[in-house]
Amino acid sequence: MKILITGIGGTIGSVIADALSKQHEVTGIDIRPLEREGTVVADLTDIDAISPLFEGVDAVIHLAAERRHTPDIGWDLLLPTNVVATANVYDAAHAAGVRRFVFASSMHVVGNYETDEPWASIAAGRYDGLDPETVPLVTADMPVRPDGRYAATKALGESLGRYYADCEGMEVVCVRLGTIADSNAIGDDPRGCVTWFSHADLAGFFSACVEAPGIKYEIVYGASANTWKIYDTASGWKALGFTPSDNAEDHRPKS
Amino acid sequence: MKILITGIGGTIGSVIADALSKQHEVTGIDIRPLEREGTVVADLTDIDAISPLFEGVDAVIHLAAERRHTPDIGWDLLLPTNVVATANVYDAAHAAGVRRFVFASSMHVVGNYETDEPWASIAAGRYDGLDPETVPLVTADMPVRPDGRYAATKALGESLGRYYADCEGMEVVCVRLGTIADSNAIGDDPRGCVTWFSHADLAGFFSACVEAPGIKYEIVYGASANTWKIYDTASGWKALGFTPSDNAEDHRPKS
Repeated sequence: MKILITGIGGTIGSVIADALSKQHEVTGIDIRPLEREGTVVADLTDIDAISPLFEGVDAVIHLAAERRHTPDIGWDLLLPTNVVATANVYDAAHAAGVRRFVFASSMHVVGNYETDEPWASIAAGRYDGLDPETVPLVTADMPVRPDGRYAATKALGESLGRYYADCEGMEVVCVRLGTIADSNAIGDDPRGCVTWFSHADLAGFFSACVEAPGIKYEIVYGASANTWKIYDTASGWKALGFTPSDNAEDHRPKS
Repeated sequence: MKILITGIGGTIGSVIADALSKQHEVTGIDIRPLEREGTVVADLTDIDAISPLFEGVDAVIHLAAERRHTPDIGWDLLLPTNVVATANVYDAAHAAGVRRFVFASSMHVVGNYETDEPWASIAAGRYDGLDPETVPLVTADMPVRPDGRYAATKALGESLGRYYADCEGMEVVCVRLGTIADSNAIGDDPRGCVTWFSHADLAGFFSACVEAPGIKYEIVYGASANTWKIYDTASGWKALGFTPSDNAEDHRPKS
């Protein structure tokens, strides 16, 4: 397959491009020049500039985004990168007949469930009386509860994906990503042990996102097989035919 | 209450402003000059220009929108009016401490359910074997299924509302509007008999949207008490304490 990755120079892009290149022809777009072969510098807000780059592409992985998600992040930053660029990448992919589209969404799209119990306790590391095998989970079909403007723009990307899947026959996977550290390390906060996505699992997961057969539209949660969960990761693993191999508990810093 | 209506010059704005003015102080913003007292001409994409208009306002009704929703509607039209303007109106309302926010969303946000049965049959007027009292309905908590880019922008407005409600304590009502005709007439297509929202019911409904106590965040469907339904209008009426009085069947053109 020919795979085009936007934002290929970021942490996630670098990890998955290395892995996918073993099986596929990987090209990339980034806003900054990169040494990686097949990478083009382009501004995704310029649809005329980027459209030719989608010709002949089988699968797009759209990672490029403003990733700051603090409450005070403004529309001046979010609009070009998380709205216009995402709209353009969908449009360019559709115009070029791209079959599979993987959209990097975020757990923040449903992040406000973490203010409810039992998830608030799990995120805070208060495990008393909770059994990780039986806690209820936030699933993919629960209403969105964005925890900020950033999250609302990610919900928009998911909505657009649903439209292109339902009406245009594009195969769309929206990955509500957890926490991917540059260093692959787990921090010492308990929420990070819920959302940790190891680099090895990340690579296998995205390979499954582009390769899994029978996909129409899926929202999947992106995290490793961590003991403590808030989000229903298992349904996504099943849809994608993917088995994670890491668990944050095995790598948690000793206190 | 002091109520600010954006897009007050449109069909919906005119109907509800007349009704709300009997009980409340109504001001308005429109992109075109209007003869209505209290109406200011302003461009909602200019947050500095509009922010002062939100001071002292108790409730905002955000109607202004690009309302064309054909599949070929482009981002050149949707971005300024349905994305930037909506983001700005939420921001300005929040900054001014507005308590209640009513967002004019659309049934198109979930419009692709109409491609599934039994809703496809109902929308096409094929009623054989269906009982309007027992057909399943599209509820407010089902995942969005936008039928185009326009609909995806309306889903964004709903997501932003959820954020402001969850995190900022704003009381938000998202109205997934059906069909409001300039003339109040019902067309001869069966879907219009499902989605018809009479002017009288529209006015009462929006009054309830601003006045109903105990609202945190609600998604409600906006249509009259029509015999044939696709969307779960009744839950919204209950949340708002509103009783519609019209039914499309009583006004349907004789064939």
